[in-house]
Amino acid sequence: MGKAQLAPSMMCADIFKLGETIRLFEKLNVPYLHIDVMDGSFVPNLMLGTAEVKQMRQFSGIPMDIHLMIEEPGDKIEWFAPQKGDYVSVHVETTRHIQRVLARIRSLGAKPMAALNPATPLSMIEEIFPDVDAILVMCVNPGYAGQKLVPQTLEKISRLRSLLDDKGFEKVEIEVDGNVTPENAVKMRKAGADIFVAGTSLIFKPGDMEEHILGFYKEMEKL
Amino acid sequence: MGKAQLAPSMMCADIFKLGETIRLFEKLNVPYLHIDVMDGSFVPNLMLGTAEVKQMRQFSGIPMDIHLMIEEPGDKIEWFAPQKGDYVSVHVETTRHIQRVLARIRSLGAKPMAALNPATPLSMIEEIFPDVDAILVMCVNPGYAGQKLVPQTLEKISRLRSLLDDKGFEKVEIEVDGNVTPENAVKMRKAGADIFVAGTSLIFKPGDMEEHILGFYKEMEKL
Amino acid sequence: MGKAQLAPSMMCADIFKLGETIRLFEKLNVPYLHIDVMDGSFVPNLMLGTAEVKQMRQFSGIPMDIHLMIEEPGDKIEWFAPQKGDYVSVHVETTRHIQRVLARIRSLGAKPMAALNPATPLSMIEEIFPDVDAILVMCVNPGYAGQKLVPQTLEKISRLRSLLDDKGFEKVEIEVDGNVTPENAVKMRKAGADIFVAGTSLIFKPGDMEEHILGFYKEMEKL
Amino acid sequence: MGKAQLAPSMMCADIFKLGETIRLFEKLNVPYLHIDVMDGSFVPNLMLGTAEVKQMRQFSGIPMDIHLMIEEPGDKIEWFAPQKGDYVSVHVETTRHIQRVLARIRSLGAKPMAALNPATPLSMIEEIFPDVDAILVMCVNPGYAGQKLVPQTLEKISRLRSLLDDKGFEKVEIEVDGNVTPENAVKMRKAGADIFVAGTSLIFKPGDMEEHILGFYKEMEKL
Amino acid sequence: MGKAQLAPSMMCADIFKLGETIRLFEKLNVPYLHIDVMDGSFVPNLMLGTAEVKQMRQFSGIPMDIHLMIEEPGDKIEWFAPQKGDYVSVHVETTRHIQRVLARIRSLGAKPMAALNPATPLSMIEEIFPDVDAILVMCVNPGYAGQKLVPQTLEKISRLRSLLDDKGFEKVEIEVDGNVTPENAVKMRKAGADIFVAGTSLIFKPGDMEEHILGFYKEMEKL
Amino acid sequence: MGKAQLAPSMMCADIFKLGETIRLFEKLNVPYLHIDVMDGSFVPNLMLGTAEVKQMRQFSGIPMDIHLMIEEPGDKIEWFAPQKGDYVSVHVETTRHIQRVLARIRSLGAKPMAALNPATPLSMIEEIFPDVDAILVMCVNPGYAGQKLVPQTLEKISRLRSLLDDKGFEKVEIEVDGNVTPENAVKMRKAGADIFVAGTSLIFKPGDMEEHILGFYKEMEKL
Repeated sequence: MGKAQLAPSMMCADIFKLGETIRLFEKLNVPYLHIDVMDGSFVPNLMLGTAEVKQMRQFSGIPMDIHLMIEEPGDKIEWFAPQKGDYVSVHVETTRHIQRVLARIRSLGAKPMAALNPATPLSMIEEIFPDVDAILVMCVNPGYAGQKLVPQTLEKISRLRSLLDDKGFEKVEIEVDGNVTPENAVKMRKAGADIFVAGTSLIFKPGDMEEHILGFYKEMEKL
Repeated sequence: MGKAQLAPSMMCADIFKLGETIRLFEKLNVPYLHIDVMDGSFVPNLMLGTAEVKQMRQFSGIPMDIHLMIEEPGDKIEWFAPQKGDYVSVHVETTRHIQRVLARIRSLGAKPMAALNPATPLSMIEEIFPDVDAILVMCVNPGYAGQKLVPQTLEKISRLRSLLDDKGFEKVEIEVDGNVTPENAVKMRKAGADIFVAGTSLIFKPGDMEEHILGFYKEMEKL
Repeated sequence: MGKAQLAPSMMCADIFKLGETIRLFEKLNVPYLHIDVMDGSFVPNLMLGTAEVKQMRQFSGIPMDIHLMIEEPGDKIEWFAPQKGDYVSVHVETTRHIQRVLARIRSLGAKPMAALNPATPLSMIEEIFPDVDAILVMCVNPGYAGQKLVPQTLEKISRLRSLLDDKGFEKVEIEVDGNVTPENAVKMRKAGADIFVAGTSLIFKPGDMEEHILGFYKEMEKL
Repeated sequence: MGKAQLAPSMMCADIFKLGETIRLFEKLNVPYLHIDVMDGSFVPNLMLGTAEVKQMRQFSGIPMDIHLMIEEPGDKIEWFAPQKGDYVSVHVETTRHIQRVLARIRSLGAKPMAALNPATPLSMIEEIFPDVDAILVMCVNPGYAGQKLVPQTLEKISRLRSLLDDKGFEKVEIEVDGNVTPENAVKMRKAGADIFVAGTSLIFKPGDMEEHILGFYKEMEKL
Repeated sequence: MGKAQLAPSMMCADIFKLGETIRLFEKLNVPYLHIDVMDGSFVPNLMLGTAEVKQMRQFSGIPMDIHLMIEEPGDKIEWFAPQKGDYVSVHVETTRHIQRVLARIRSLGAKPMAALNPATPLSMIEEIFPDVDAILVMCVNPGYAGQKLVPQTLEKISRLRSLLDDKGFEKVEIEVDGNVTPENAVKMRKAGADIFVAGTSLIFKPGDMEEHILGFYKEMEKL
Repeated sequence: MGKAQLAPSMMCADIFKLGETIRLFEKLNVPYLHIDVMDGSFVPNLMLGTAEVKQMRQFSGIPMDIHLMIEEPGDKIEWFAPQKGDYVSVHVETTRHIQRVLARIRSLGAKPMAALNPATPLSMIEEIFPDVDAILVMCVNPGYAGQKLVPQTLEKISRLRSLLDDKGFEKVEIEVDGNVTPENAVKMRKAGADIFVAGTSLIFKPGDMEEHILGFYKEMEKL
């Protein structure tokens, strides 16, 4: 199991301190900027888009972790101009041609990730393990910051980890998103999570962001 | 005819200088921040959302001019928490119950605006003049910055102005959006436009933004 | 201009006194039972359906006035087994093939009616006058009982009456639906309405239903 | 295993004897009124709605068992004003956020049930057992009364019962709907069914309804 | 007014004599092959597609007149690889961005045409005259061969011709499609039609196709 | 295991030699004509339709193998007038009522087949084995000829064969579609495939079609 990785959720960032926030992430070697793209149809909220992604890319070399919570993602991936090193995650609930979409992400040079809502069973992804570099396990229903963990998703992470390992896909990473508090992060890590989407429960909460990040890593190293 | 008003298109703003840009708008008494909300379904792009709107509102008292380029807007207006003084514009192409949606905007305390794509005929709005404070005439097909004017939209503005005046709706304002260059702005003004969405063709182009804005107002006063 | 006709809205009826209510309508020669069919998609409510229609038909010979507030009505008309003497109304906002749908209603032996939301312009029906026996002008946005009149719809009735007469369609009737109070009924009648959908504002309000009905007719005869 | 329970399908009831039918159910302690809500889109029929539910609720204290065969149920649950003691069932085929919808039903005070079409595999619900009080196994394709049992659904009930028990969800009830004849009811009960939707195959068939109901209970007690 | 032009509807052709049929069209200088593309969603039939178009193009240099009766045509135009000299027609009922779609057709080098169902009013196209080379007036509801003329469409052709001429668009051609019999063709021509889609009512009926075609032209020349 | 069967993909055939191609298939006892029906919505292409099917049926008695890659197939099956001996395949991703659709195909006298995209798990069909005569395993994402095999689909065929045999459905056939080269055909056959959709990778490639077909059968007999 690799090192625990943080992916700060940029929709939680103070838009008026975006520059200094990203510079802090660079200083602390944060591996990804998590971009929550919401279209108001797949999820009940509208959030971020192509202009924000483009400008952040010009400002910083931190890879993007673009989480597409949108209808028909297959037609819209190029809008975000995915780069080598980026993750692009697509919800299996949003396309009936998920293998094609994942293959297209890879052909564009980025790393494909499949995302699952809390109620979506693991059986839905059993044919696409060869096509992903990571699986995103949503631990809340997507659409908002500040929701509480759906409890059974913790055990879902473990089952997914076992399933991946059993089938020879040890290298496929697991990302977790939703109510990643320090306490939940420990449980998620033990269950097998690799990448942690960090929002208002972890690093965008009151207090010093640098301390929150360092505290997270320190806690993870203990495990 | 009232004074020409500017509504800077915030999707064109430098996201890393958002604070100082808005302070400049405050200094120059810019009356609205134009917010282009795109859902990737009604228009082929994804842009801005509720978190950005909320943060800008907390930062500045400039009213919002929220342009909803989204499917089923009637269900989503409250997500943006419209305030007294704000405009909320809804495309007539996106709902079959536009009168209900406009009435809801008014009941929330904001000013309702109906928006029309370039090809949408004026006849589509002839029953809703009592329900709007403004009509938004799109002069390009919505979805991108940097497009060229659809030429016949200039004459459409004139016809709309006449239609409104003839029916006793002199107070209904006309907003124009799309390729508002200094030259086009003059033609649009002569045709009857009141509010000008200002993007990369006018104030977010190279050069000094303050000069661009003052230049626009000076030009308008000559007319 | 023919006699004013009443079409009681059955969704407002006391479901536990349905039999006696319909017998009263028979006694008073009420010409239609108005059936509000809502699908929760075109309008924000679900209401009535095929079983209710079938049972009412077996119980009484009063013709039905079936108001389809549903998506893709063309595929669903036969579900209601329209009969000679019935009206079936279809919203022009719900199909892109309204001429085909109206022709199908006629071919099934019933009378076709086109329905218009408050904001839908009269220009939308200008090619289908030969295909209808009536036009339904909605005076509120469909979906609920108990709403207030959208004021400009009164004048829309007049314009429609003139338009029909000018083009030689004097026999096409106008139905009105929404906030038909005694006062509004008078205005609607003067504007040219023939059939009045009677709900909680007229005959299903507190008091004696027979008196409400007779009062309506008496008032109409004065005009 | 608890006592077998009856949930009469109100769409099969004689609408002109609704009052006496419900009083009979009260007398016989029928635990639920089953309300088939159909929207003409998810299923090829339109049936019942909010006004009928509201009126039945005012007439009787029997809890409702509201079966939503509709698109996007998550946005429409409140329309039915679910009460403590009611079941509300939602088809997993109609929403991609079933966990959120079930949680909302519970937060409104009612009991959440997930419904499955005959062909929908049990794997589709394996992540939501903690969120339901019952699972509805459709034994015919929803949309009509009077269809024949899809044979393999009998064995599906057994597999579901085992699955629930194995995972520690012994308290989750199983409801069956579709062609519940006396003979099929026995097989369904043996397979693990708890609640039986009773339509034209069981209690709304010719003969005395009270006898049909008592006969059902007697038969069930023998098992 | 230019010469009357024939556009044989290839869906009516004998698929086993396609080669000789097209050679006959070449010999007789038929100006277009009319390709009815139907998607089973916008119209209730499925017909022709990209492979057939590609093969016909390789076989003959006759320009195509591609009639897209499909949802979201804007995303699918390139699939048909339009060529200089081709017409591509798009139904205004199928896109909310018709100006963009027509402009894209022109930018690909082909000639843009807007198509109207029988019930679609002329007001729907009043803003796009500068963007088209022709308007297609459907004289039956699209979806099938062998339907009868919707009578009022004859007069619609006249009104369109006048409208175009009045606004200075004399060069915009009118195409007619649906029940183009010899008799109807005469009426359509007198009303102002330029291009005649020829199906089972005109050239694919029993008898000699060459004679049908020559007979059509002879008849047209008399007018 | 029965004899390997060929189903030539008619969308790959030379449309100008359709007659002689079909006569060759008759001579070689090809058991099915595979008809790829694409609607441009479920798959990103438009292809074939009812007129082509009807004409081929009149020309030859070879049964059809109609592959519906279309939305809402349940409403459209009759358009193709399925005959005894025909297969009709329906994608499980395109309907939420697959059991009803399969049952309807059987009731029309044809043989029902369920089709699966590469990423669709086998668990999605576990309740419908009694309702099918065959399962179609897509080995590429549907929409185009000429794509490369999705590697994991080979093993999916084996798992499906085992699953069918284990549950007592030995007679259910497996069809494979997508990149069926001579080499892949051997692997697919070993994995359990019965019917091979033959396109540009097998019989419509350069060279002599009769030799390709005979070569295929010879190769299959060796296994």
